Amino acid sequence: MDELMNLLSRYKKQWSLEQGFYTSGETLAAESEKIWKRDWLFAGFTCEIPLPGDYITYTVFNHSAVIIRDDDGGIYAHHNTCRHRGSVICTEERGNEPDLKCPYHHWVYEKNGRLRSARMMDKDFDRGAFGLHPVHVSILSGVIFICFANDPPDFSRVRSDLAPYLDTYDLHHAKVAYRDRYELDANWKLIGENFRECYHCGPAHIEYCQAVIGADLFEERAQLWAEQKEVWRTGGFPEHTIHEVMGPGHFGIRYPLRPGFATYSLDGKPVAPLMGKHKDYDTGVVGLIHYPNFWMDAVADYIWVMRITPLDPARSVVDLTWLVNGWAEEGRDYDIERLTEFWKITGEQDWQLCENNQKGILSEKYSPGPLSDTETDVVHFHKWYLTALGRK
Amino acid sequence: MDELMNLLSRYKKQWSLEQGFYTSGETLAAESEKIWKRDWLFAGFTCEIPLPGDYITYTVFNHSAVIIRDDDGGIYAHHNTCRHRGSVICTEERGNEPDLKCPYHHWVYEKNGRLRSARMMDKDFDRGAFGLHPVHVSILSGVIFICFANDPPDFSRVRSDLAPYLDTYDLHHAKVAYRDRYELDANWKLIGENFRECYHCGPAHIEYCQAVIGADLFEERAQLWAEQKEVWRTGGFPEHTIHEVMGPGHFGIRYPLRPGFATYSLDGKPVAPLMGKHKDYDTGVVGLIHYPNFWMDAVADYIWVMRITPLDPARSVVDLTWLVNGWAEEGRDYDIERLTEFWKITGEQDWQLCENNQKGILSEKYSPGPLSDTETDVVHFHKWYLTALGRK
Amino acid sequence: MDELMNLLSRYKKQWSLEQGFYTSGETLAAESEKIWKRDWLFAGFTCEIPLPGDYITYTVFNHSAVIIRDDDGGIYAHHNTCRHRGSVICTEERGNEPDLKCPYHHWVYEKNGRLRSARMMDKDFDRGAFGLHPVHVSILSGVIFICFANDPPDFSRVRSDLAPYLDTYDLHHAKVAYRDRYELDANWKLIGENFRECYHCGPAHIEYCQAVIGADLFEERAQLWAEQKEVWRTGGFPEHTIHEVMGPGHFGIRYPLRPGFATYSLDGKPVAPLMGKHKDYDTGVVGLIHYPNFWMDAVADYIWVMRITPLDPARSVVDLTWLVNGWAEEGRDYDIERLTEFWKITGEQDWQLCENNQKGILSEKYSPGPLSDTETDVVHFHKWYLTALGRK
Repeated sequence: MDELMNLLSRYKKQWSLEQGFYTSGETLAAESEKIWKRDWLFAGFTCEIPLPGDYITYTVFNHSAVIIRDDDGGIYAHHNTCRHRGSVICTEERGNEPDLKCPYHHWVYEKNGRLRSARMMDKDFDRGAFGLHPVHVSILSGVIFICFANDPPDFSRVRSDLAPYLDTYDLHHAKVAYRDRYELDANWKLIGENFRECYHCGPAHIEYCQAVIGADLFEERAQLWAEQKEVWRTGGFPEHTIHEVMGPGHFGIRYPLRPGFATYSLDGKPVAPLMGKHKDYDTGVVGLIHYPNFWMDAVADYIWVMRITPLDPARSVVDLTWLVNGWAEEGRDYDIERLTEFWKITGEQDWQLCENNQKGILSEKYSPGPLSDTETDVVHFHKWYLTALGRK
Repeated sequence: MDELMNLLSRYKKQWSLEQGFYTSGETLAAESEKIWKRDWLFAGFTCEIPLPGDYITYTVFNHSAVIIRDDDGGIYAHHNTCRHRGSVICTEERGNEPDLKCPYHHWVYEKNGRLRSARMMDKDFDRGAFGLHPVHVSILSGVIFICFANDPPDFSRVRSDLAPYLDTYDLHHAKVAYRDRYELDANWKLIGENFRECYHCGPAHIEYCQAVIGADLFEERAQLWAEQKEVWRTGGFPEHTIHEVMGPGHFGIRYPLRPGFATYSLDGKPVAPLMGKHKDYDTGVVGLIHYPNFWMDAVADYIWVMRITPLDPARSVVDLTWLVNGWAEEGRDYDIERLTEFWKITGEQDWQLCENNQKGILSEKYSPGPLSDTETDVVHFHKWYLTALGRK
Repeated sequence: MDELMNLLSRYKKQWSLEQGFYTSGETLAAESEKIWKRDWLFAGFTCEIPLPGDYITYTVFNHSAVIIRDDDGGIYAHHNTCRHRGSVICTEERGNEPDLKCPYHHWVYEKNGRLRSARMMDKDFDRGAFGLHPVHVSILSGVIFICFANDPPDFSRVRSDLAPYLDTYDLHHAKVAYRDRYELDANWKLIGENFRECYHCGPAHIEYCQAVIGADLFEERAQLWAEQKEVWRTGGFPEHTIHEVMGPGHFGIRYPLRPGFATYSLDGKPVAPLMGKHKDYDTGVVGLIHYPNFWMDAVADYIWVMRITPLDPARSVVDLTWLVNGWAEEGRDYDIERLTEFWKITGEQDWQLCENNQKGILSEKYSPGPLSDTETDVVHFHKWYLTALGRK
């Protein structure tokens, strides 16, 4: 851990991080222990597993969870490894199983993890001692968070801060319209940093800047924003900025679209029916983050969520989900192409920037550079990260 | 070696092995030294190289042998590296060469390994000192075993135990009808464990259980087996169970097929002409094993052999060979599809189970689980393995 | 470094090198420090970047340079990493950019590396302190060499030795007719060794031996060579052999083609217009080398250059370039197929030999073998290499 301690001790506020944070296996191992196996992680949505036996799996480093809907509607998460000889229980990324039956020797577990039967075992075999190892679950307004730690951190502040924002979307009755996945040659934190500043938006994101007034950091939007806040408050939509860096590291904000833009789309026109409590398309953009892996950008008619998962120091997966109103029908109420093109274009611009960034950081000559004032939230992200990494 | 010693010391009999046995590079390195470079390894069959100059190559970790038929019918094995600048001599997996001529500078070796000519070398160059490094060879009833050790372990007990079984197949006059290869994301021992128990056969192998009475561990077969043994003895076919764990680790058994099944096939009908001394299809199944890499399942009309070779802690190659009577002609006497479909189906079920097993064992939460009484031969495999690994 | 010191201390002159030189990550790391980040490296040709803003990039281990033509015709090289957050500046292997603008946040550098503008940075931000990190450049008769060291070794001897040879080709007015790239499973030094001896030419290179008299090491060519030298001298073409092992490690030679062969081609007929000062096709072959990565074979009508770049101990890239007279037009003056087939065939023979060599050296049983007298230049290569590796 000496290398890591040195890295931490050399940190200069308002500068980019040293190379070792983005390239070292030792750093990644420390992040695994101090962050990924310790904090609440975004896994998916309750609306993805509406029926008893519906499940999803999520793997982070060498931890893999199966998250399953019980017969009485509850949601359980378990380590996806049989207590007999260790086989994975659920072999697919998502599916439906009446029981958690190991495909190897057919040991059968209840959805709540209890071992129901183990064929041909000794009479004195104690089934009660061989249930699936549990993983903690917290449902936050339809968003599923899991935690691999024995003692998960307190989640109540995240809940009270983010629920008002999420509740307006009625996520329990939303549906997944589209999923996409990219494997990036970039450290997971470079993706995080990218999504915490708009210094690059003017140069890199024409379409995004067209939809979001002020994203180029030049246009004036203070007055418009203030006026809109009044409208949002009146309509019962939260609009205060949440900025909780020191604890679990979450963030929330609502900001205006450009006048004439109803949503995140190339032409500004709606792409799907209004979600949840929305009565109009004038509710701007909601940005919610829970470090390290929940990144959500929502407009009145759809939600785009990015789940970041590290693979190697220089490789990460981003899983993208587009959610729409649960009763919406593809073809009739929305068109996949129109729904997804805005973030497909904007996202791919970002993936390229992140990979460029990693590639340059791999240079022996890379050294931290000074950040501009517009990158303050990157500094906040660093603060959360370094604090988390320094935890005992 | 401390990690390995700890692993060995924590072993609990009748439980599955700890994660480190299946995932650690240190363990694999120890296995390489204590097992793969020390024991006799199955390489192929004499009938694969019937003519002078016919050769096969076999690579295990960083040892590679070329096994070649000499002009007088003998079989030699050599390390496949030229004594000049180290190039491989035989670049293909199998072929025929009149001489062992290095493709780089055409140093020419005799099939017995002696350096015959080295172009343009000094007058005082001593050809006698630069023969190919030899690898030990033992031919057991047409099966080629090689050993990379300087002092190979005694092979006489393997020979006397397995020859009676093998001799009935007259392997010198057999022929290879088909070969297949799979690269599995699984530790080599998981493949071994899989083939040492039928606890999974009922759940996983419908076709196998249809052909082999009692493979589901429920059906009664004791009386049938006892009656069949009488028939086999009378016909001159060995039927005693060989179980030699402490030494080289070999195993032999003959058990009955389901009445109405002449062979390992989906419909129970023969798929090829009888082999060797077989006069009828009623000789059941012969299972022979020589740890670590010779796994044979034979019926009256064909032999299926699996050769396991480790690549990484979590990656292995299985090479499969189907042997039939040497005079049999494809199309006329057998059909490749019919000959291979039984083990293609059964094997692929197993490969999937082995990969599931590895995937689950990679979980940090995996811990050894208790084995059932039906997995006794897995315990025997562990005993052989742990003894071998603990050797000085 | 103990392993390396042991390897160095056990070296036996006139024998091939030990396995550790070709397989060890520690050796490669030492080579990176002592050779690749310290010596002048061939990067490309001035004729590849004739216009202001034309650039090429070249990456060796974790150093990556962008080499760009300035507005006044000069050539600069910079580390390809932005001083802000480290992104690569030029993302392509070659192209043209009016400025060196970082794609991430549009910091803009002059072609000479000075930071011209950094958007939205603080008033007190010192642009002068954040220019691109420079890489040294030396142009030798149209060949671009770069050096990643702070204090590059003296280049004057290389210049004075090789310029007379190169000048006859007028490379500033040459053009790239074709490029090719191979990734070889071979240590970079095996490729070097291969190109420093013709012991393998007779066995391996039929086409090459047809074009080059004596390449088989049997045919008499002394008298022809002596006569040709006279012709070359008279024509003003250098013909003396340069053999500078101890310093930068460069080499030059001119030797005759077979009578009736005008050039390196399968039928001996010319394949392109004469280059530079050549008035006839009777100037034989010019071979120039600058260790570690510049390997050039030139005839009167074209130049073939190989650039070797290590990736892993057992993996390298060879980049091949065919240069012709700058005014030559494809289709009219030369045919790509005819121009490239001679070295495509000969090169691919060599790539196979190098990969065979690596494969055999990976064997645990490989040990250094004795070299023949015909491999003296391999011994010289070893001498340069071992001296370089042993530098403080």
